[in-house]
Amino acid sequence: MPASIADSAIYRDLFNDEETAKLFTDSAEIRAMLLVEGALARVQGQIGLIPETAAAFIDRAAREVQIDPAELAAETATNGVPVPGLVAAFRKAMQAPEHAQYVHWGATSQDIADTGLALRLRRVTEIWDDRLRQIAQALADLACKHAELPMAARTYGQIATPTSFGAVVAGWGHPLLRHRAALARLRRDLATVSLAGAAGTLAAMGPEGPAIRAALARELDLSDPGHGWHAERDRIGTFAAWMAGLCASLGKMGEDLILMAQSGINEIRIAGAGGSSTMPQKQNPVGPSVLVALARQNILLSAAVQNAGLHRQQRDGAAWFTEWLTLPPICIATGRALALALELAGRIAPDAGAMARGLDDGTGLIHAEAYSFALARHMPRPVAQARIKALCAEAMNRGNPLPSLVARDYPELDLAHTDSLGSAPEEARAFARSARSAD
Amino acid sequence: MPASIADSAIYRDLFNDEETAKLFTDSAEIRAMLLVEGALARVQGQIGLIPETAAAFIDRAAREVQIDPAELAAETATNGVPVPGLVAAFRKAMQAPEHAQYVHWGATSQDIADTGLALRLRRVTEIWDDRLRQIAQALADLACKHAELPMAARTYGQIATPTSFGAVVAGWGHPLLRHRAALARLRRDLATVSLAGAAGTLAAMGPEGPAIRAALARELDLSDPGHGWHAERDRIGTFAAWMAGLCASLGKMGEDLILMAQSGINEIRIAGAGGSSTMPQKQNPVGPSVLVALARQNILLSAAVQNAGLHRQQRDGAAWFTEWLTLPPICIATGRALALALELAGRIAPDAGAMARGLDDGTGLIHAEAYSFALARHMPRPVAQARIKALCAEAMNRGNPLPSLVARDYPELDLAHTDSLGSAPEEARAFARSARSAD
Amino acid sequence: MPASIADSAIYRDLFNDEETAKLFTDSAEIRAMLLVEGALARVQGQIGLIPETAAAFIDRAAREVQIDPAELAAETATNGVPVPGLVAAFRKAMQAPEHAQYVHWGATSQDIADTGLALRLRRVTEIWDDRLRQIAQALADLACKHAELPMAARTYGQIATPTSFGAVVAGWGHPLLRHRAALARLRRDLATVSLAGAAGTLAAMGPEGPAIRAALARELDLSDPGHGWHAERDRIGTFAAWMAGLCASLGKMGEDLILMAQSGINEIRIAGAGGSSTMPQKQNPVGPSVLVALARQNILLSAAVQNAGLHRQQRDGAAWFTEWLTLPPICIATGRALALALELAGRIAPDAGAMARGLDDGTGLIHAEAYSFALARHMPRPVAQARIKALCAEAMNRGNPLPSLVARDYPELDLAHTDSLGSAPEEARAFARSARSAD
Amino acid sequence: MPASIADSAIYRDLFNDEETAKLFTDSAEIRAMLLVEGALARVQGQIGLIPETAAAFIDRAAREVQIDPAELAAETATNGVPVPGLVAAFRKAMQAPEHAQYVHWGATSQDIADTGLALRLRRVTEIWDDRLRQIAQALADLACKHAELPMAARTYGQIATPTSFGAVVAGWGHPLLRHRAALARLRRDLATVSLAGAAGTLAAMGPEGPAIRAALARELDLSDPGHGWHAERDRIGTFAAWMAGLCASLGKMGEDLILMAQSGINEIRIAGAGGSSTMPQKQNPVGPSVLVALARQNILLSAAVQNAGLHRQQRDGAAWFTEWLTLPPICIATGRALALALELAGRIAPDAGAMARGLDDGTGLIHAEAYSFALARHMPRPVAQARIKALCAEAMNRGNPLPSLVARDYPELDLAHTDSLGSAPEEARAFARSARSAD
Repeated sequence: MPASIADSAIYRDLFNDEETAKLFTDSAEIRAMLLVEGALARVQGQIGLIPETAAAFIDRAAREVQIDPAELAAETATNGVPVPGLVAAFRKAMQAPEHAQYVHWGATSQDIADTGLALRLRRVTEIWDDRLRQIAQALADLACKHAELPMAARTYGQIATPTSFGAVVAGWGHPLLRHRAALARLRRDLATVSLAGAAGTLAAMGPEGPAIRAALARELDLSDPGHGWHAERDRIGTFAAWMAGLCASLGKMGEDLILMAQSGINEIRIAGAGGSSTMPQKQNPVGPSVLVALARQNILLSAAVQNAGLHRQQRDGAAWFTEWLTLPPICIATGRALALALELAGRIAPDAGAMARGLDDGTGLIHAEAYSFALARHMPRPVAQARIKALCAEAMNRGNPLPSLVARDYPELDLAHTDSLGSAPEEARAFARSARSAD
Repeated sequence: MPASIADSAIYRDLFNDEETAKLFTDSAEIRAMLLVEGALARVQGQIGLIPETAAAFIDRAAREVQIDPAELAAETATNGVPVPGLVAAFRKAMQAPEHAQYVHWGATSQDIADTGLALRLRRVTEIWDDRLRQIAQALADLACKHAELPMAARTYGQIATPTSFGAVVAGWGHPLLRHRAALARLRRDLATVSLAGAAGTLAAMGPEGPAIRAALARELDLSDPGHGWHAERDRIGTFAAWMAGLCASLGKMGEDLILMAQSGINEIRIAGAGGSSTMPQKQNPVGPSVLVALARQNILLSAAVQNAGLHRQQRDGAAWFTEWLTLPPICIATGRALALALELAGRIAPDAGAMARGLDDGTGLIHAEAYSFALARHMPRPVAQARIKALCAEAMNRGNPLPSLVARDYPELDLAHTDSLGSAPEEARAFARSARSAD
Repeated sequence: MPASIADSAIYRDLFNDEETAKLFTDSAEIRAMLLVEGALARVQGQIGLIPETAAAFIDRAAREVQIDPAELAAETATNGVPVPGLVAAFRKAMQAPEHAQYVHWGATSQDIADTGLALRLRRVTEIWDDRLRQIAQALADLACKHAELPMAARTYGQIATPTSFGAVVAGWGHPLLRHRAALARLRRDLATVSLAGAAGTLAAMGPEGPAIRAALARELDLSDPGHGWHAERDRIGTFAAWMAGLCASLGKMGEDLILMAQSGINEIRIAGAGGSSTMPQKQNPVGPSVLVALARQNILLSAAVQNAGLHRQQRDGAAWFTEWLTLPPICIATGRALALALELAGRIAPDAGAMARGLDDGTGLIHAEAYSFALARHMPRPVAQARIKALCAEAMNRGNPLPSLVARDYPELDLAHTDSLGSAPEEARAFARSARSAD
Repeated sequence: MPASIADSAIYRDLFNDEETAKLFTDSAEIRAMLLVEGALARVQGQIGLIPETAAAFIDRAAREVQIDPAELAAETATNGVPVPGLVAAFRKAMQAPEHAQYVHWGATSQDIADTGLALRLRRVTEIWDDRLRQIAQALADLACKHAELPMAARTYGQIATPTSFGAVVAGWGHPLLRHRAALARLRRDLATVSLAGAAGTLAAMGPEGPAIRAALARELDLSDPGHGWHAERDRIGTFAAWMAGLCASLGKMGEDLILMAQSGINEIRIAGAGGSSTMPQKQNPVGPSVLVALARQNILLSAAVQNAGLHRQQRDGAAWFTEWLTLPPICIATGRALALALELAGRIAPDAGAMARGLDDGTGLIHAEAYSFALARHMPRPVAQARIKALCAEAMNRGNPLPSLVARDYPELDLAHTDSLGSAPEEARAFARSARSAD
């Protein structure tokens, strides 16, 4: 019964990312929380807060025990958090009450849930970092290969001046390099242990509290923030905003592909494009459209997570629940966007012929700026620009090509370099170098 | 593998609404689409566009055939829509190619998907209408019962003047009556057939196209818009906005309950409140917090649906996919919010003692406005207000109760009616009458 | 010092709507609030709550007095609402303390502010209703005139089947008719008086409170809700959502125009399109781009207003302030979108030649669906569709036109009506009739 | 005519931040753009692309000329960007056509607008950095001073365990330290020159293009990205997301203050709190409510900016306009939130007595967790917890204080340290040290 299309058996291959999604399964969540309970017992045993034998028993049990998620449903519905139910089920499953009583000693639900989340997000972001690396490589290859392939740059949908396909690809890639650099910082921030007890003071652990938190951080290879952060949700908010920003950048690539694939433009071929139930000829840019949709969704989900940053007092159920509702779908959509962008990067091919036709649509208007600069070598630039503008109007109204009008009026004008790609080829190659050096 | 917490076996009872969710299952979606294909064949057979025997065969098969959702995954991933795969699977399952060829005659994927959605949303909104009715009744009972129960009204969190609990409940209920009235209109709008063919012109059905659409509408008890609306998403947008608005109103009730349940305020008891994993005394207002979280989520998901209203040209994959991603979770969350509000309406009980203590906190400041009006019978109102304000300051600084300060300075003042509940009791009862008459 | 681009002297003509904006000026706000204070005094005088002479004096003064907005700044900064400062300034300006004391008798700030807003929004929505009417007429004219003008329908940016420009215009217009119908209801809802006193109970007005509210409603030609609604923000939320939905529909028109105006497509001419600082040939679709931007902004601002629907207790400063921050810009942007859409509707002209070239791009692929139905008269439809699909592939790979391939393989096939516009012309005309009858 | 409440003469002191706003005035925008034109001419003169005398003349004129914003309105309305109009006005104002023709040589509107924005945002973020520093200091002082002041920690609004006011303050401050660290990186990213010419290739500047960009960056003390970034809006998106996150953290402080200031809780005094138009006793937490409202608004405006990250092709008018609409209000609101938070940090004072009453509400329930750990020294923890839970129930039902029930049943129990503040005091001081060392 999918509440999310990503879980639908029908739509799964369109919207789901199994590798990311499996970190958000019930079993992954339970496993991560038990790992935290086990590590907590271990360090509490070492420091002497709980008996060492109990600690060892709990630690082993935390790795071995199987908890049925459905078993936690009733208590979770009442308490709003799964941890009381999980602790009870874990204790029961251990079948050793003398040890079991030391489970979860002095911790609170949010410690376990947030630290478990940190462990899962570490893995999620590791997967994504690798995908970002691969996308950057694939775009670097495309940019390099087509560094000199001319195509029309478009502003407001209008043909502007020539550029190269490689430079366009570099424009998709540059933001991804920056997003990846930001991810490296973000991953460190997210990998932070939470251990603060009932209301942030670790009081139930006595004076050893801070030492236990530090030790737990070491055990789990997380960083120790030196204080509780139950109600400080800025790291989660920044993570959500990063996903929104990343998906916006991938969505821009999607939009460009949709526009390049339009009938009548046809500058890009997308292998494996979609068919219609009734129109035999259709080659729908399904993948790019999915990229755009994921971006549009994630930007709003990210705002919901940011809203949850207004987390009242020492724990705010409403704000915390909002995170629970929105974080899994935004993560899975981000994973899907990355997987899909990588796939698309390998499935697209420019159509040089169509690009050439786009540049030379018979009007030659694309050279208007270059002509105005050529003419400005012989007269003031505003005058030159006004004259070319008048010829553009004539070209558009009468259907004469601009180059022949320019030749007619300014037969001496040197028109060499008026089809220059400018810095486009070198920028394409420079992007490829950056992407490869960031590998 | 839940991409949504509503599907989690752990969290299901907290966030899911089975009755709503089952309309968004793969099988419900397939069933609805087959129903549309069957009805389409039926009317096309009657009108003579396809052979009547084929029509009858398709119609029956559409009701009987079992299609495995997973079978559609591969084609859906390629085409971006499940309908081509569904039509193929349906034709194959019919094992009668001579009839099967007439399935989906002249229709396009979006016709089937949108009409199927209309059928499912009709049922969803029917369920919700009934819940809204029940919530209104439950609130009417509460408002009536406690129409005269005094409590402190609060503005900016500060005690303002006395009101009654019944009036507060009426304040939760009034917007729900309006939302329910809007739902009645919305339901009619949503129950609209979509049949427009490949790109909105019904060309493949020939001159009978419009008649077939009208007949299909009749068959399915939907309305005939008289034209295609593939790219007109305003009804869906309005529906999403309605869900956001409804959940905001329910979220307001949630916020009020959280605030009333605060330790130190304790004006409300919520039966079955949540426990903590470490604090034995906790009675967390879990349900109200969930209401707030669902509202915060839905408002953002609704914005995503509205964004998809910028649906380009005759079909916009990106915009349509955005709807697919966001409509199921917003609907399920709305269903949950309604179920939960209904449940809470039966689980809350005011604590008259705590309310009385809130009114009479020893300072008597809550009567300041009333005193100023009493005094204004004897002097200009601005003077009266300034004098009472000065006494308020004295009361707050020295800890003397305001009433005794007033009695000290204005011993003759008639203070009758200064604890009036004003129109609160009657407004509570009037709401109850409205709610009951709307039943 | 514009915090909003709509107020910028540079950008004003691009983003501002003077007619709407003037309802959100300081002076308009003050005037509306004074009007309410005046009417309140009038009815309180009639009912005898305050002296009739004072009432008459206040009433007249409310119409005549000039209050400098800047005078209210300091008190507004402290109190969070302008009304205490306004009442003080009004009383002072009246220079008749014996009457002035009866100003604002028993009312609270929010009564005055919300009722003043109701008055202003009534005028705002009246202006918009007229614009919507005019846009619908303009689109009706366009749809009618070009009901039979063939152009390519596009799905996913790909040419699908023929339609008519008139039908495309009708697709822009239909949602506007629905939005206008919704506006009629909304206007009634918004035109509701607010009079509930300090915390919703009207206590300070004694038993006459409800009668005074009813009388005030009559005086101002607003409806009397029969109760206070300080904390019931659903009407405002619904209004914001309506603006978001309307702007999304106008934004869809903007997107279509941008796409039709693309170089290489050129199906539409937009008179007065924008120039570039460096490219003489550019004809940028500035207006349509503004429409899209206004829509994208308003959808998010609307979500902010909806969020403010979680209005805590009897008055929630934070929620109310959020409305103040977001309602003016969303209204002004909506006004601008309407004005701009109306202007664009008169400035666009289809280019029949470009549309014809779009239909007949030499490939003839646009007829693929029609051919498959023609062929299906001679063989099972799935077979026919597969055969035409194969010919489409051949056409795309080898560059042969599909019609000649079909003629080669199926020389007997009757291809009459394969370029049918289907129901498009009639739908265009039907829209025009609807729009005109709704006038 | 304010489209934004920040510009209202009435509301200015509540919502505006003059220091930030003045960077978004028309004159600031024009000045920044002229500065860029001047610097561009300078470097183009040095490199020899334009005559040195012309360059010097332009450079000087750019500093001296006065352009009336209103003069640009008409052209801006047509072109969608102010730069063509500005260049024309600038040329005219120079009154030296022989030099004026070299203004804006080879640049495009977006180069000038985006570089001008970079200059303005550099100043804006400098102001904010200083405010963040000051807020951190003020919170450090508060945290230090009240490191040991006991108050009740609250989760879900319920009293949980004791904490200290200093620790609560540290919880407001920690995220601000992180936001400030992120701002330092962000400021570097935002301070990036844009110079890419008509469509990103700098073609009109010939082979010197990249060198000119590098030189322009040096002149303006910005960084040279090495390529054009007209359509790469991720830095702007990240900036908007940062503002949303910052304001969410400040909004959390606002929410906490509202809750602490509630009548019946009264744990905080806010000097200069707001009055009511009718209730003499009110002390409304206006400032904290504004903080919350600014956060709620900015989170949504940030989503609008992120949406504009789907910036199509080489320039997307709709996306760019969306930034223009939303960036000024989000920046001004952020500036206001910072100024207000700083002001509030100096205006709040804890009420130790009220905090003590909150801790000791007569029920002693706040010690329940501590008792359960004390008891767990004598029996298994689950048993101990269940026994204390039973006593909690008894305390709540019968109104007996929990401590006396515990003393009754477990007279031997050592209850020392059950009112421990745990790590709260030290965490408060540690925050102060961090904040001061980050100065």
